[in-house]
Amino acid sequence: MLKYQEIAGKIEKSIKNQRLKQGDKLPSLEELVSQFNASKSTVRKALEILENKGAIYQLRGSGIFVRKLKRRGYIDLGLTRGLKGTIGEYEMTTEVLAVEVIDATSEIAKNLSIEIGDAVYYIKRVRFLHGQPLCIEESYFVKSIVTYMNKEIAADSIFNYLRTALKLNLGFSDSYFHVGKINEEESKFLKLSIGEPKFYLESIFYLATGKAFDYSKTTYHYDQAQFFIQATSE
Amino acid sequence: MLKYQEIAGKIEKSIKNQRLKQGDKLPSLEELVSQFNASKSTVRKALEILENKGAIYQLRGSGIFVRKLKRRGYIDLGLTRGLKGTIGEYEMTTEVLAVEVIDATSEIAKNLSIEIGDAVYYIKRVRFLHGQPLCIEESYFVKSIVTYMNKEIAADSIFNYLRTALKLNLGFSDSYFHVGKINEEESKFLKLSIGEPKFYLESIFYLATGKAFDYSKTTYHYDQAQFFIQATSE
Repeated sequence: MLKYQEIAGKIEKSIKNQRLKQGDKLPSLEELVSQFNASKSTVRKALEILENKGAIYQLRGSGIFVRKLKRRGYIDLGLTRGLKGTIGEYEMTTEVLAVEVIDATSEIAKNLSIEIGDAVYYIKRVRFLHGQPLCIEESYFVKSIVTYMNKEIAADSIFNYLRTALKLNLGFSDSYFHVGKINEEESKFLKLSIGEPKFYLESIFYLATGKAFDYSKTTYHYDQAQFFIQATSE
Repeated sequence: MLKYQEIAGKIEKSIKNQRLKQGDKLPSLEELVSQFNASKSTVRKALEILENKGAIYQLRGSGIFVRKLKRRGYIDLGLTRGLKGTIGEYEMTTEVLAVEVIDATSEIAKNLSIEIGDAVYYIKRVRFLHGQPLCIEESYFVKSIVTYMNKEIAADSIFNYLRTALKLNLGFSDSYFHVGKINEEESKFLKLSIGEPKFYLESIFYLATGKAFDYSKTTYHYDQAQFFIQATSE
């Protein structure tokens, strides 16, 4: 973990520990610099992370302020991380339906900016929240980047594996979503009737270098999932 | 418009004009500083805006790169702006059903961090995209901040009015959403059957000072709206 990530984590923890509320003022940049014994640019980078995450806002000339805590139980789509990292390690279980190497179709190739026929890991999973079906997910990982995968890894947090075992530096993500109606296959996995509502999410995840490594398509149970985004102004 | 906003706009325009693609390299910070005849911190602030918007990414030691253009026709929930600003001025029309001053209920007061009974403008609108019903929206504006409102303003872009006439400095927003089923009232406005899918979005908009000024609840036609978010990493 880099120094500025560490500092961002510490500031966030102190907001939680002190139960600070929307509009509460944090120490100034200069005070944080001396508190963490870090350079100005490092502390500024840490504050930028927290601002992007929606944990704080900065008012030029006035200081640094705490943003409202999000409502509980919502999945944050504004963060580039896997579902386990978002919802919490212990509430989720996973049933792995498939882990195999396939050739990229034109749809997969287009979304991952690779060639048709390039090798990708295809992973299909049903994920459960407190034992109830939450979503069915199909993911495609570029094999030249995600060089190894198996059922045990897919049953746990794949993103955690990418970070810790493969030492990949995750960057950003694009998410597209809309509402639709459940089809026959989804109805079985999510225990819904055909035609009931669904939340359909497509995401493309990039390394910090800008290279796409994961394209995933997820159908959520309409009554099990709620979502959240914090946006900053232009 | 502030200098850094102007520069951000110019860089974005040049990305479009030059049809730059994902991974294409932009001029260095130093080159941009001399190109725009601005200070380093101003250009940095402009780049930060573009990074938050998902238009570029910066790689320490390597440079500044273009991010993939989003797919067309998706509503960007990562930006703090009104629907007209997001979708485009000319494709949208609005039917205003109500503009009135009411007392804040406990639900409204809680979301806007005001007192129960405080005056708010209640605005109810149906919005159409190319003549088809897109969404039905109920908004609550804090009257002490949004001091005047009428049907003509509500029929156009309210956010534009807030910025230009009331000179409000818009800050950030929190959005919560889930999928549900259309109720009787929504079915009439959106021309759907009761029980068909809906996308339900609640947003709280804040001034740059951190004060909440608008709480809105919007139900989207499931087949008319698609959404988009670009996320950065932690």
